Amino acid sequence: MTYHIEREIAEQPEALRRLVHEGMPKAEQIAAAIRAFDPAFVLIAARGTSDNAGRYAQYLWGVHIRLSVGLATPSVHTLYEAAPNLSRALVIGISQSGKAEDVRRVLDDARKQGALTVSITNDPDSPLATGAHHHLPLMVGPEVSVAATKTYTGQLAAMALIAAALEQTGELRQGLLKLPEYVAETLRLSEDIPHWCERYRYMERFVTTGRGYNYATAFEISLKIKELCYLAGAEYSEADFRHGPIAMVAKGFPVITIAPEGKTLPNMVSLLEKLKERGAENIVISNNAEAAALGEKVMRLPAGIPEWLSPLVAVIPGQIFAYRLALAKGHSVDQPEGLRKVTITQ
Amino acid sequence: MTYHIEREIAEQPEALRRLVHEGMPKAEQIAAAIRAFDPAFVLIAARGTSDNAGRYAQYLWGVHIRLSVGLATPSVHTLYEAAPNLSRALVIGISQSGKAEDVRRVLDDARKQGALTVSITNDPDSPLATGAHHHLPLMVGPEVSVAATKTYTGQLAAMALIAAALEQTGELRQGLLKLPEYVAETLRLSEDIPHWCERYRYMERFVTTGRGYNYATAFEISLKIKELCYLAGAEYSEADFRHGPIAMVAKGFPVITIAPEGKTLPNMVSLLEKLKERGAENIVISNNAEAAALGEKVMRLPAGIPEWLSPLVAVIPGQIFAYRLALAKGHSVDQPEGLRKVTITQ
Repeated sequence: MTYHIEREIAEQPEALRRLVHEGMPKAEQIAAAIRAFDPAFVLIAARGTSDNAGRYAQYLWGVHIRLSVGLATPSVHTLYEAAPNLSRALVIGISQSGKAEDVRRVLDDARKQGALTVSITNDPDSPLATGAHHHLPLMVGPEVSVAATKTYTGQLAAMALIAAALEQTGELRQGLLKLPEYVAETLRLSEDIPHWCERYRYMERFVTTGRGYNYATAFEISLKIKELCYLAGAEYSEADFRHGPIAMVAKGFPVITIAPEGKTLPNMVSLLEKLKERGAENIVISNNAEAAALGEKVMRLPAGIPEWLSPLVAVIPGQIFAYRLALAKGHSVDQPEGLRKVTITQ
Repeated sequence: MTYHIEREIAEQPEALRRLVHEGMPKAEQIAAAIRAFDPAFVLIAARGTSDNAGRYAQYLWGVHIRLSVGLATPSVHTLYEAAPNLSRALVIGISQSGKAEDVRRVLDDARKQGALTVSITNDPDSPLATGAHHHLPLMVGPEVSVAATKTYTGQLAAMALIAAALEQTGELRQGLLKLPEYVAETLRLSEDIPHWCERYRYMERFVTTGRGYNYATAFEISLKIKELCYLAGAEYSEADFRHGPIAMVAKGFPVITIAPEGKTLPNMVSLLEKLKERGAENIVISNNAEAAALGEKVMRLPAGIPEWLSPLVAVIPGQIFAYRLALAKGHSVDQPEGLRKVTITQ
């Protein structure tokens, strides 16, 4: 394989298998600490791709373990030098490198106030890893490409692992054990993407849309396309998009819709119909025949995957689409202009 | 005046004067209830423009009254029929019409669990107004234009009023008393916008950027332009934009930057310099000479306004820019395509 990003995307089944199996004991320890602490709420501090992992956790933890999860505003701590009261919070810092300075600051402020702190990073020796009460390592191996792929699905799996350890029914644990096979199947189903994605060589703007668990996927795919292809795009919840911004969709406007089987499917199918009426170019990520039939192009997902687990596979065709489109446009895919691997926001 | 939106923008000094003066007793009552309840955190349930008011409160309340403020994910309650534990939360529902079904659902679930609930609406007889423990009416008068303007600044002022009643120093209260004059001055400073905004008649995409208190302003101005002009745009925190998406900025790409005096100014000036190097079309909203000098076009703000109060005026030139650009493009400004005044997301 020629590109780091290509290899790192392909490594995802093995990387996630390692995390799911070897990470469970640590996730159990963290879950025990969370039960003992009994947090009033959860706050996730992160930026960029890691923030999208936090967005996924808002739904997964909200629905499955009934914890209210918010996303931190690190500038409150850094630029304004204020520390909101986090004494009754579980504060989770997510950072691929473990070097995000503003995320560390939120965790430090929280810890001083008596909060329970957890970090999720891909480097067990990083400041974030060593500075929190507990650390869950991603164990996905070094990520060389500047655009994050396997660390993103690793972050989602890490949040799901802790949820699985907190949850009583065993439903999440069962799902996670099947995850590596679902991811491998998604890679096989995505093999046709390079054959048709040149169609979008001259696309200049786009929208992604999802809802619920896959609101995070809409954000992450949009970010990958923006980072790698330098395009203007926006990501929407299906609910927000429908009420207003859909007005920008004229004939041929490309919209990537994430519509797996699950509670959100009827809303997503209804949106796809509305988009088709407007002449939009529907690009559909789905495992559902009705949704797929509304797409000009379809990126297929495995059948039977539970909706809560679907963000871990639905992002993958988006990763492939983004880097293949970047190649078609002649961009450097491993070192995009303007991006650095380690982001240290003060 | 020919258009409802034009009149409603112009009404803002008077509408905010009424809210600041007549709303204070009710804000004091709400503050007393909040002190007695001693919430572990605050959750704001809202959509669209009202969500941007929540975004402002994350910074204002975080910095000035040290409460951690999160934004709710209503789909957790509606689509997935789950109720995260909100028993130790102050839950605030914000909705112009007071009829947002999903916001009501979050408040109902929270109230059943023992949370303290507050609603902020422009209709004291609406379901949200009558269904919460406390209601703060916006008192800005009926808003006829579909795109929200005076109800948005009203929502910001309402969140600031409650914060002022909770805060000890009197700083917020003093600032709010001067607000109507600052808003009137901003309208005067904005009188030149109609003379130059036709320059953007054929603009097809754009970015808005802000940080801290004015992160909300970046979102709201972007939403106004998208709603009224049907353009593809994206809103960024200065920190996120700089690390990646800035790569899309080629010569002539229009970027609206909100850069008032305050803690965020050095970051915003540094971003403006970076954008200028790339040949971007800088449109600057500022009361600072250094920032203004980096703009191709400048929308001026009053001197001396405290940064925490600046979002209440910084959005106004953006409102005017958005509706004037819509007129230049020949769009209907009071009834944009695809928008309804009352949004009831299930």
